[in-house]
Amino acid sequence: MTPEELARSVARGERRALARAITLVESRRADHGAQGAALLDALARESGGRQAIRIGLSGTPGVGKSTFIESFGLMLTAQGLRVAVLAVDPSSARTGGSILGDKTRMERLSRDPKAFIRPSPSQTHLGGVARRTREAVALCEGAGFDVVLIETVGVGQSETVVAELSDVFLLLLAPAGGDELQGVKRGIMEVADLIVVNKADGDLKPAAQRTRADYAGALRLLRRRPQDPEGFPKAMTVSALEGGGIDTVWSEIGALVAWRRENGHWDRRRADQARHWFLEDVRQGLLAELDAPANRDLLEHMARDVAAGRVAPAAAAQELLTRLERASAPGAELSGAARV
Amino acid sequence: MTPEELARSVARGERRALARAITLVESRRADHGAQGAALLDALARESGGRQAIRIGLSGTPGVGKSTFIESFGLMLTAQGLRVAVLAVDPSSARTGGSILGDKTRMERLSRDPKAFIRPSPSQTHLGGVARRTREAVALCEGAGFDVVLIETVGVGQSETVVAELSDVFLLLLAPAGGDELQGVKRGIMEVADLIVVNKADGDLKPAAQRTRADYAGALRLLRRRPQDPEGFPKAMTVSALEGGGIDTVWSEIGALVAWRRENGHWDRRRADQARHWFLEDVRQGLLAELDAPANRDLLEHMARDVAAGRVAPAAAAQELLTRLERASAPGAELSGAARV
Repeated sequence: MTPEELARSVARGERRALARAITLVESRRADHGAQGAALLDALARESGGRQAIRIGLSGTPGVGKSTFIESFGLMLTAQGLRVAVLAVDPSSARTGGSILGDKTRMERLSRDPKAFIRPSPSQTHLGGVARRTREAVALCEGAGFDVVLIETVGVGQSETVVAELSDVFLLLLAPAGGDELQGVKRGIMEVADLIVVNKADGDLKPAAQRTRADYAGALRLLRRRPQDPEGFPKAMTVSALEGGGIDTVWSEIGALVAWRRENGHWDRRRADQARHWFLEDVRQGLLAELDAPANRDLLEHMARDVAAGRVAPAAAAQELLTRLERASAPGAELSGAARV
Repeated sequence: MTPEELARSVARGERRALARAITLVESRRADHGAQGAALLDALARESGGRQAIRIGLSGTPGVGKSTFIESFGLMLTAQGLRVAVLAVDPSSARTGGSILGDKTRMERLSRDPKAFIRPSPSQTHLGGVARRTREAVALCEGAGFDVVLIETVGVGQSETVVAELSDVFLLLLAPAGGDELQGVKRGIMEVADLIVVNKADGDLKPAAQRTRADYAGALRLLRRRPQDPEGFPKAMTVSALEGGGIDTVWSEIGALVAWRRENGHWDRRRADQARHWFLEDVRQGLLAELDAPANRDLLEHMARDVAAGRVAPAAAAQELLTRLERASAPGAELSGAARV
């Protein structure tokens, strides 16, 4: 099957074609890279203009992320919407298990014909995760999904990556008892549109409501972002287990999306994100010079000297740059002479 | 005067030599760049191992930053400590006035022989500000100052830069009345060690105490960082005008510094920062290729196409990188042939 044929199958919404397409863009083989680019290019022509609502979702293990996604996803498919679930999990190999590797955690959603769940790819550096997730999101959009959920456990910089891929960002929390620390990563407050306190059921309900009030208070202390209508970011409670509040999460997302669309923020965010990823790819391309094994060793060696105070940062950087230039420009002497 | 002679004068603590040295490292002239490097190198030999406590300070206009610095600085000089005040203000040209351009705002401190106040350099891109401020900090340390205060209005990414230059970071706030929004930039919660609510005097005292309590509550919701002892980051009130609480700020900084020194966090942070600036300088050096006018135009042109959706980010990035490679390697054909 050519990339063009695969693109047509994806655009028709064929699940197996989509799975195969994602495997192709996740591959590290050089020939697969070219095929993946051709596939994305063909898909853009086949399904240009199709847009899903991309929802980023972050939450530490134990907050009930899988239960929430299952409950939220089933509510959407019951409304006739098609839902894709992707995961960004740079730590999956390290922690010994992908958050989505076991589809049995979302057993009902994974059997739903209107849902598509894709386990996270194996561990790699975050730059690689970002590119592949972006391409998987584009494939799901091209396949006509109405909602793409992009899940992350929030290790390292991953929620920043997911935020740059999402239209709306949700932070899922568990109720905290009394003075217990929630341990929210600080950077998350930058990107969250909705703070959703889960497990608002049974004994935990009062604690969930208190936690919600705490975060609502904290959010009021932060500066309002231009892309936020009155009242956003918002803190709310849900019970993923019993389904309480799940529909409100969706209606709040709907209100936020409608406002951003009307006020030009939706298109601007998508445009800014495209621009961001372009610049990021260019930067990564230029910085890739440092990834060559010999250069990486040299960099690490010099970084140790700098950290130990044996040489000043600026002087070390200058020396490294000079060495890289010499190593990478075999015609350098020639062109230097030509300039004189 | 040679850079070596200037370094010796700086190391002896001569104020005029220090001012001249900072002017040298702030200069953009190429020959000054080499002299500045020689100066820093010589100073490191003259005064190696001298360490000030570097305190980053951020706060929006109107919170009483100048009054706080004057009051805090005079308390320190009264204890016999030498204090330098530097400013990072990438917006100074835009807003029409440097936060420290007018020394009359800290009239008493600027006349104090134990204090050294340096207005912020004229506007430039943040990367340049970072390097020059780093070098100015190094000069003040080499000149034997006990405390170096690095002030920023927190425009753009400037508090991230200041945090990477500081041992301790203070956020100064004004009391908020009732539901009034403080508008704290979200990223600041990442880096603050002390949140100091100013103007806890007269009518505003109850509001200041309430604001302090609000932030103390918000801080409890965030994850504890490894470099923080029990109880940090901490929220507190001061009256810069009447001097109330200023000594407590200093004793809290002392407790924090002592704990971090004992637990290895002080040295580790300095080492991490040196490493960070080395890597940052290397990256900036590699990315400088994009600053050439022709490349910048091309980048901007392609970024517009990407933002408008006319081309995919990855494809555009690939094309740009290929063009840069061709343009920057006059010996490329030759070396390509040699490799075959």
